[in-house]
Amino acid sequence: MTNRIEHPIRIGIVGYGNLGKGVETGLTLHPDMELIGVFTRRNPEDVPSKSPVYRMTDLEQMKDRIDVLVLCGGSATDIPEQAPELQKDFTTVNAYDNHAEIPAHFDIINEVALQNNNVGVIATGWDPGLFSLNRLVAEAVLPKGDTYTFWGSGVSQGHSDAIRRIEGVKLGTQYTIPNETLIEDIKEGKEVAYTKTSSHKRVCYVVAETDADQAAIVESIKTMKDYFVGYETEVHFIDEDEYEKNHTGMPHGGRVIRRGYTDEETMAVYEFGLELGSNPQFTAAVSIAYARAAHRLYQEGNYGAKTVFDIAPAYLSPKTGAELRKELL
Amino acid sequence: MTNRIEHPIRIGIVGYGNLGKGVETGLTLHPDMELIGVFTRRNPEDVPSKSPVYRMTDLEQMKDRIDVLVLCGGSATDIPEQAPELQKDFTTVNAYDNHAEIPAHFDIINEVALQNNNVGVIATGWDPGLFSLNRLVAEAVLPKGDTYTFWGSGVSQGHSDAIRRIEGVKLGTQYTIPNETLIEDIKEGKEVAYTKTSSHKRVCYVVAETDADQAAIVESIKTMKDYFVGYETEVHFIDEDEYEKNHTGMPHGGRVIRRGYTDEETMAVYEFGLELGSNPQFTAAVSIAYARAAHRLYQEGNYGAKTVFDIAPAYLSPKTGAELRKELL
Ligand SMILES: NC(=O)c1ccc[n+]([C@@H]2O[C@H](COP(=O)([O-])OP(=O)(O)OC[C@H]3O[C@@H](n4cnc5c(N)ncnc54)[C@H](OP(=O)(O)O)[C@@H]3O)[C@@H](O)[C@H]2O)c1
Ligand SMILES: NC(=O)c1ccc[n+]([C@@H]2O[C@H](COP(=O)([O-])OP(=O)(O)OC[C@H]3O[C@@H](n4cnc5c(N)ncnc54)[C@H](OP(=O)(O)O)[C@@H]3O)[C@@H](O)[C@H]2O)c1
Repeated sequence: MTNRIEHPIRIGIVGYGNLGKGVETGLTLHPDMELIGVFTRRNPEDVPSKSPVYRMTDLEQMKDRIDVLVLCGGSATDIPEQAPELQKDFTTVNAYDNHAEIPAHFDIINEVALQNNNVGVIATGWDPGLFSLNRLVAEAVLPKGDTYTFWGSGVSQGHSDAIRRIEGVKLGTQYTIPNETLIEDIKEGKEVAYTKTSSHKRVCYVVAETDADQAAIVESIKTMKDYFVGYETEVHFIDEDEYEKNHTGMPHGGRVIRRGYTDEETMAVYEFGLELGSNPQFTAAVSIAYARAAHRLYQEGNYGAKTVFDIAPAYLSPKTGAELRKELL
Repeated sequence: MTNRIEHPIRIGIVGYGNLGKGVETGLTLHPDMELIGVFTRRNPEDVPSKSPVYRMTDLEQMKDRIDVLVLCGGSATDIPEQAPELQKDFTTVNAYDNHAEIPAHFDIINEVALQNNNVGVIATGWDPGLFSLNRLVAEAVLPKGDTYTFWGSGVSQGHSDAIRRIEGVKLGTQYTIPNETLIEDIKEGKEVAYTKTSSHKRVCYVVAETDADQAAIVESIKTMKDYFVGYETEVHFIDEDEYEKNHTGMPHGGRVIRRGYTDEETMAVYEFGLELGSNPQFTAAVSIAYARAAHRLYQEGNYGAKTVFDIAPAYLSPKTGAELRKELL
């Protein structure tokens, strides 16, 4: 592998939501990469970007000017539709996060990528992504043990959307908060009952409509199946000013902890954690590093679908092997 | 890459100190690996292992019965002498931790490995090793930022040896303790003055000889250049019972923290941490996972020296790619 890039890696961004914006911003931090343009399903004039914005239909004729497309559509419907189609002509990276569907998505992208001699790196980001990588390393090194994933403190987009759909709710944000007592108990070697609902609590900040029934809103939130039932849930009513000031960001993060044993009784705690001021910007940051890797795999003719599991760490860095050994080993 | 191993990977352990014992113990946790024997420079009868123990000179005739040698000698002199020699006939893994000499060691092993069509994975363990891996990933994902490494709380073998050489010291253990205030400041985005000496303090537990001059011992410790000068250093005198009860273990650990920015002002904190009941056992655990990777690289004909930077995470796990995607992504 030659680590040194001769000319900047030319990137196209597909979809300009939070993640797309994050990739645009993030690329400015990587001198070995260059943004060719943003591609959108909307009218380019309606997309508030300072970069060149093109229609999706322009992509085909720009094929030779782009090394890697970073797919920034939503995981619910955009990625399943767009990724297999774009994979025909491009090396791609996505942050697809529908965990249950990842194996099938891998197979689809793998087939198209192998047929067309390109590379598709799927499910980058932090979870899936860096969290997955750490779950793997932790388990491989400490086969005897248990892995725990905690999310937060951070904003859950899905849960925030859900509370905003309740009658009488004008604005709302939901924070997922990990159970710190449980985390301490794990690290201290205590026996723990880790369940989906015991491991996190849910804290909601709601701006109610003027005449709304606040008790009814609380009731609607706490009884919402799949989202809140079973969780310790707090609801705080605040005014619009406070909401705009304190609850419009997208912070997130979390921890992967493996408590393992290196012999019958000797404990080893492996922990990976992130505290992110901006979830989409960090997800973008990871996707950008994997875009660099995708381009190198492509240059080596190592085609097909890949995940964070399949990519040697050195491919993520612009530094040469010798530089990495000298500076970081 | 086929992830599934047909027959157990056959391991030889070279050198039976703390690390060698750790590999012997650790291998019992890996059903896809098998210990062929321990190889020592001492008289095999003097080596307190329940596994088959052989002389180093027996290695050559056992070549075909061993897939990977895990080299467990000391970094100061054993590895530089033994590794290039053994690399001629074997795929090897080591935990060489002389950071300044790693680039040269890589080049030596690389040359021998390429000449003899085998694989040499160097500098595994936790630092170098998993810490290095995280320094690389953190920097590649967050190019704008700073990386900080903290060690401890844990026993430093080198510093403990140094205090034990002081006149009047019967027994002694030195703990390296990270500066938690500095760590908090880093995570909170404050400006910090991180230097080698401000980032850790050193706490010594000493059993003095009966008539020893304790003040002189303290003085000798605190004025020891390279080891203690400049550090906040505490010396506690204890009796032999307490020493045997509380200070003969080899716990260690530490953290790699990168404080990065995903745009002009938005912070992202990336943290990797280990809390190890046994430093050598965990170092062994990492070496074992990389021994699995080394064997697979060998099977693929991907010869030469490798570091943790060059090895895709999937190679560390006994699971297939499909299993990993389904269970851990
Ligand atoms: N792996 C991880 O760790 C991780 C972490 C966070 C998020 N993610 C994934 O990243 C995906 C994208 O997240 P996101 O926050 O960027 O989603 P988003 O803001 O909803 O954007 C998704 C798409 O919607 C369209 N869009 C955006 N703003 C629009 C507007 N004002 N009007 C009409 N259409 C608009 C854009 O496509 P067009 O430009 O084509 O219209 C955009 O690509 C999520 O679905 C999630 O699955 C993964
Ligand atoms: N990368 C990392 O994160 C990391 C972490 C910790 C340690 N390490 C490295 O691991 C290396 C090995 O550490 P270690 O704690 O295993 O060192 P150790 O206990 O001093 O053993 C080193 C060698 O000394 C010989 N030996 C051991 N006990 C002996 C005894 N009672 N009498 C005579 N010889 C004896 C053994 O070789 P024979 O059997 O051939 O005599 C053994 O291989 C260290 O030098 C360090 O560099 C790396």
